[in-house]
Amino acid sequence: MVGIIMGSDSDLPVMKAACEMLEELKVPYEIDVVSAHRTPEKMYDYASKAHERGLKVIVAGAGGAAHLPGMVASLSPLPVIGVPVKSSNSIDGWDSVLSILQMPGGVPVATVALNGAKNAGILAAQIVSAGDQELQKRIIEYKKGLKSSVEKKSEKVKTNYHP
Amino acid sequence: MVGIIMGSDSDLPVMKAACEMLEELKVPYEIDVVSAHRTPEKMYDYASKAHERGLKVIVAGAGGAAHLPGMVASLSPLPVIGVPVKSSNSIDGWDSVLSILQMPGGVPVATVALNGAKNAGILAAQIVSAGDQELQKRIIEYKKGLKSSVEKKSEKVKTNYHP
Amino acid sequence: MVGIIMGSDSDLPVMKAACEMLEELKVPYEIDVVSAHRTPEKMYDYASKAHERGLKVIVAGAGGAAHLPGMVASLSPLPVIGVPVKSSNSIDGWDSVLSILQMPGGVPVATVALNGAKNAGILAAQIVSAGDQELQKRIIEYKKGLKSSVEKKSEKVKTNYHP
Amino acid sequence: MVGIIMGSDSDLPVMKAACEMLEELKVPYEIDVVSAHRTPEKMYDYASKAHERGLKVIVAGAGGAAHLPGMVASLSPLPVIGVPVKSSNSIDGWDSVLSILQMPGGVPVATVALNGAKNAGILAAQIVSAGDQELQKRIIEYKKGLKSSVEKKSEKVKTNYHP
Amino acid sequence: MVGIIMGSDSDLPVMKAACEMLEELKVPYEIDVVSAHRTPEKMYDYASKAHERGLKVIVAGAGGAAHLPGMVASLSPLPVIGVPVKSSNSIDGWDSVLSILQMPGGVPVATVALNGAKNAGILAAQIVSAGDQELQKRIIEYKKGLKSSVEKKSEKVKTNYHP
Amino acid sequence: MVGIIMGSDSDLPVMKAACEMLEELKVPYEIDVVSAHRTPEKMYDYASKAHERGLKVIVAGAGGAAHLPGMVASLSPLPVIGVPVKSSNSIDGWDSVLSILQMPGGVPVATVALNGAKNAGILAAQIVSAGDQELQKRIIEYKKGLKSSVEKKSEKVKTNYHP
Amino acid sequence: MVGIIMGSDSDLPVMKAACEMLEELKVPYEIDVVSAHRTPEKMYDYASKAHERGLKVIVAGAGGAAHLPGMVASLSPLPVIGVPVKSSNSIDGWDSVLSILQMPGGVPVATVALNGAKNAGILAAQIVSAGDQELQKRIIEYKKGLKSSVEKKSEKVKTNYHP
Amino acid sequence: MVGIIMGSDSDLPVMKAACEMLEELKVPYEIDVVSAHRTPEKMYDYASKAHERGLKVIVAGAGGAAHLPGMVASLSPLPVIGVPVKSSNSIDGWDSVLSILQMPGGVPVATVALNGAKNAGILAAQIVSAGDQELQKRIIEYKKGLKSSVEKKSEKVKTNYHP
Repeated sequence: MVGIIMGSDSDLPVMKAACEMLEELKVPYEIDVVSAHRTPEKMYDYASKAHERGLKVIVAGAGGAAHLPGMVASLSPLPVIGVPVKSSNSIDGWDSVLSILQMPGGVPVATVALNGAKNAGILAAQIVSAGDQELQKRIIEYKKGLKSSVEKKSEKVKTNYHP
Repeated sequence: MVGIIMGSDSDLPVMKAACEMLEELKVPYEIDVVSAHRTPEKMYDYASKAHERGLKVIVAGAGGAAHLPGMVASLSPLPVIGVPVKSSNSIDGWDSVLSILQMPGGVPVATVALNGAKNAGILAAQIVSAGDQELQKRIIEYKKGLKSSVEKKSEKVKTNYHP
Repeated sequence: MVGIIMGSDSDLPVMKAACEMLEELKVPYEIDVVSAHRTPEKMYDYASKAHERGLKVIVAGAGGAAHLPGMVASLSPLPVIGVPVKSSNSIDGWDSVLSILQMPGGVPVATVALNGAKNAGILAAQIVSAGDQELQKRIIEYKKGLKSSVEKKSEKVKTNYHP
Repeated sequence: MVGIIMGSDSDLPVMKAACEMLEELKVPYEIDVVSAHRTPEKMYDYASKAHERGLKVIVAGAGGAAHLPGMVASLSPLPVIGVPVKSSNSIDGWDSVLSILQMPGGVPVATVALNGAKNAGILAAQIVSAGDQELQKRIIEYKKGLKSSVEKKSEKVKTNYHP
Repeated sequence: MVGIIMGSDSDLPVMKAACEMLEELKVPYEIDVVSAHRTPEKMYDYASKAHERGLKVIVAGAGGAAHLPGMVASLSPLPVIGVPVKSSNSIDGWDSVLSILQMPGGVPVATVALNGAKNAGILAAQIVSAGDQELQKRIIEYKKGLKSSVEKKSEKVKTNYHP
Repeated sequence: MVGIIMGSDSDLPVMKAACEMLEELKVPYEIDVVSAHRTPEKMYDYASKAHERGLKVIVAGAGGAAHLPGMVASLSPLPVIGVPVKSSNSIDGWDSVLSILQMPGGVPVATVALNGAKNAGILAAQIVSAGDQELQKRIIEYKKGLKSSVEKKSEKVKTNYHP
Repeated sequence: MVGIIMGSDSDLPVMKAACEMLEELKVPYEIDVVSAHRTPEKMYDYASKAHERGLKVIVAGAGGAAHLPGMVASLSPLPVIGVPVKSSNSIDGWDSVLSILQMPGGVPVATVALNGAKNAGILAAQIVSAGDQELQKRIIEYKKGLKSSVEKKSEKVKTNYHP
Repeated sequence: MVGIIMGSDSDLPVMKAACEMLEELKVPYEIDVVSAHRTPEKMYDYASKAHERGLKVIVAGAGGAAHLPGMVASLSPLPVIGVPVKSSNSIDGWDSVLSILQMPGGVPVATVALNGAKNAGILAAQIVSAGDQELQKRIIEYKKGLKSSVEKKSEKVKTNYHP
């Protein structure tokens, strides 16, 4: 259902949070390394055929002058989620963010926060859930889990921290 | 299918590009002004009931310390698309972009470019098309239209500009 | 008198400086974890009822796309002090600062420096002291203490560092 | 109750929004031009005696390397609200914002948005209202007015904009 | 010898300065509109065959999330000069600059100043002149012209401006 | 063929990546420390005579207020490649980037990414290859190597990471 | 006593404020256009001989990748004041500021605000006044003038603006 | 001759480079801790009497919302050199730089690079040397030392690094 790609295997430590989120929400996915700049042909093939292979959404992570999400979006009719990665050759992440976010009219990329692969996974699941009531229920459950996690922390802070 | 909301009616000149795009792609939508800061109760109602009313995706535009997209995302299981608006009280748009993009883990907002409401409309259509083959075809046609539009400009430049 | 809340318990190492300052100035306070994005209902309750419970000012700390201070300010008639926290998911703190500072007209947040929880504590005390002459005297004493502390450092530098 | 000062009379077009807000909320105020850099003695007098004259809060606006709010805060035990002004000698307002916001520990300035004098007026009223129940009611009424203003705009947009 | 391409015909007012410079230095060139995002196949063809057609250098201009120069560089063995254009959908030009400049190791783009198409033309001529002594002489003459132009301005300022 | 210079020997750890790249592509080069600010006469000599000594391109690296690349470009008819170095006295690299990139019309510097000395080496080789078919072939081979390196990483990720 | 130079005659509208200030303070000066990038030899001569000609301080203004102040500082033992000019080819003035301010250890430039030529004139006078008691008195008088100018504005604001 | 002051003793590790430079150039100096925000009266005394005590120039270092250099400049007719310190409560140094550099017309601060205390020391010596031929000779010698230091590094790099 979801294709997760990244520009370099050095992006994997960030991007695997998307995989974990999709596993938690039970959404099937595939993963690969596809570089816009080093394997442009592979990128072309991957992006232009993804919808024919039955994928519903593509998650693409890259850093620096990050062209992968935007180029995939130009080649595919599917919604593309971009994850700006704060890689070692990045200027504090600003290059990653701006070169993914600021796409021209006609070719959107759904951008998440810097290193926000976890949210990319949730967003991919939300998109798939447009046609899957059961998945939407699991997302609602996940959100309830966020709430109870904060409630536990609230208790802990109030108990342990006596003004 | 798509709910378009904005923090102020002064955002309408930017946000109407999303409406126009959805009309071109024949995706039904509704539009309203919902302010996170001035009408928090209305926002709460809108966001927490949108999926029950049958909406598939919410597009939310706001400027400055733009909290509307993120707060709607916290209250709804639907995918939320955020449009940073370069409003008059914005510092060159950076505040709008960062306060929509940099959402914490667990609560994604699919952010598009500054003033990128047109792309928000396309992205919303792409999300709806996950369960609508005909819409996906119209999106593919739209992309072909982009190409032929560039080709015409290419001819014009090559003809009119004689080195 | 003062309610101190934060978006996550990971903000506690920063935010506890506000508590310590209020203790030093002998201003009663309470502390809790309230997340705008993960516990929106709790935030709604907390903010809309704080003035009825007798609180005079709310100190709210959050990082990244930090919506807690602004949303609390939209729901409460009390003055709200915002502390931008440089959390791990922040772009050098700029997102935290701008999404708290740049509130629209009508809904102010009194913003302090990045990680400036100590100053938030002092500011809260100054606000409470509007109706408490004794507290104002303690604040004046505190400021004198700042002066004598600098004077000691001045002596040390002049003594130890012989040009 | 409220002292409004600014570094230059060129800041008046921005700062008068604070006056208007205080008039609307019926909070007495005074106004003056006090320059940290051109009239340091006057600033010293104004700031160190303001609380003895019965002022409860000081609103200080300045642009560029804006030292007025911070210097007044160092000399007065009162809460000081700083308004960063985007003056002609400012670098897009960043200098105004940072030189007011980033005060060191011990000397807070309650900073509002760039050119956010209206919010400075509301914040000053909120601070004064700590000891004035009637004023707090007027603030609550003001917030209701914000809501109904948005509701009117909502109707207008929904009526005039037929998808 | 030189291929000049741009992402949109709206970039032409900026990019024509490169044409004028090449004409002044008598370097043959061609011009076209090639969009990375709207005509990816055309871009692929153009970039991968340019060196076979005898081009020695490619000048590519684009704005916003500007992927054209980098993608062409990934597909061609030729040196690629990137011109960041401050287009209407750009955040003060930062996105254009960073998404062209910050290319990953292995795929360089020779980036010039924001809107620096004139310098792109000179740089292209300098590259071609590596194998063309006559062209190098014309470049040396051009630089002398810069000098005498400044000398004339120097005289004018010294004559007209009497301290 | 290629002259590599840097403003300080502290830039060597960054700049040696250019040397290594030129060695891999079998392009002869020389290396030296030339400071615009500490040895202006040496810089003047180096830059104004480089083309007479047979150099085809100059690679210049510097950090902070980095004037070396631009000053060399003003004194030489050769193409000059600038490498912004993130030195210890730099503000996150922004000063290095902007003081190299933003050259005035008439005096281009071909700027690469922050610390992008490897790409400077490749770009220098690409420029030299304008008159050297064999070198162009080696560059094409190098690019193929990038591709197969990514393909190996792709296999590794797909094999080791089982969703 | 003071040499005022600028990189282009387009900087004159900004730089003439330095002239006017020196005239007001009765400090002799000369003015010229000297471009680091277009007339490097003239710059070399000007800078290396200025102290022999009896100049006491040099004021240098430039925009974009502004190398003039730093290069003059590297060639002269005199104090050099740099004026960052927000020229048309500048990115909001950041490039001008950073390429003048961030000089390496050993070669200082006394930098003033963006477009701050007036302050450069005052600073030059202050430096000259180190050996001129009469000039120091005129500077003290000038500062008193600033004060009385603010006092007049204060009266005007207090009189005309009746809360 | 030179007064060196800093806002906090935590600035001493940065500021002592100014002392060392003045010792090397044999310029007498004094050192103290003077805080604009914590000891405003001491600052007032120090600044307004410095020229009467025979000081020729003041070097002032501070971080964050750094008001010390500007306030001293407003109170003294002497030239004031500002050193922006990247302190722990600074946003990457931007606040320190902008709140020192961007002084309004009439009150200049001669700003050096972030943490550039060494250059502040040299600049102070250059200012004092306006009336001291022997000191100017020592500065010229110091600059020659910079040159020979680079020449040694040049030999080392050329010897040790065999392409």
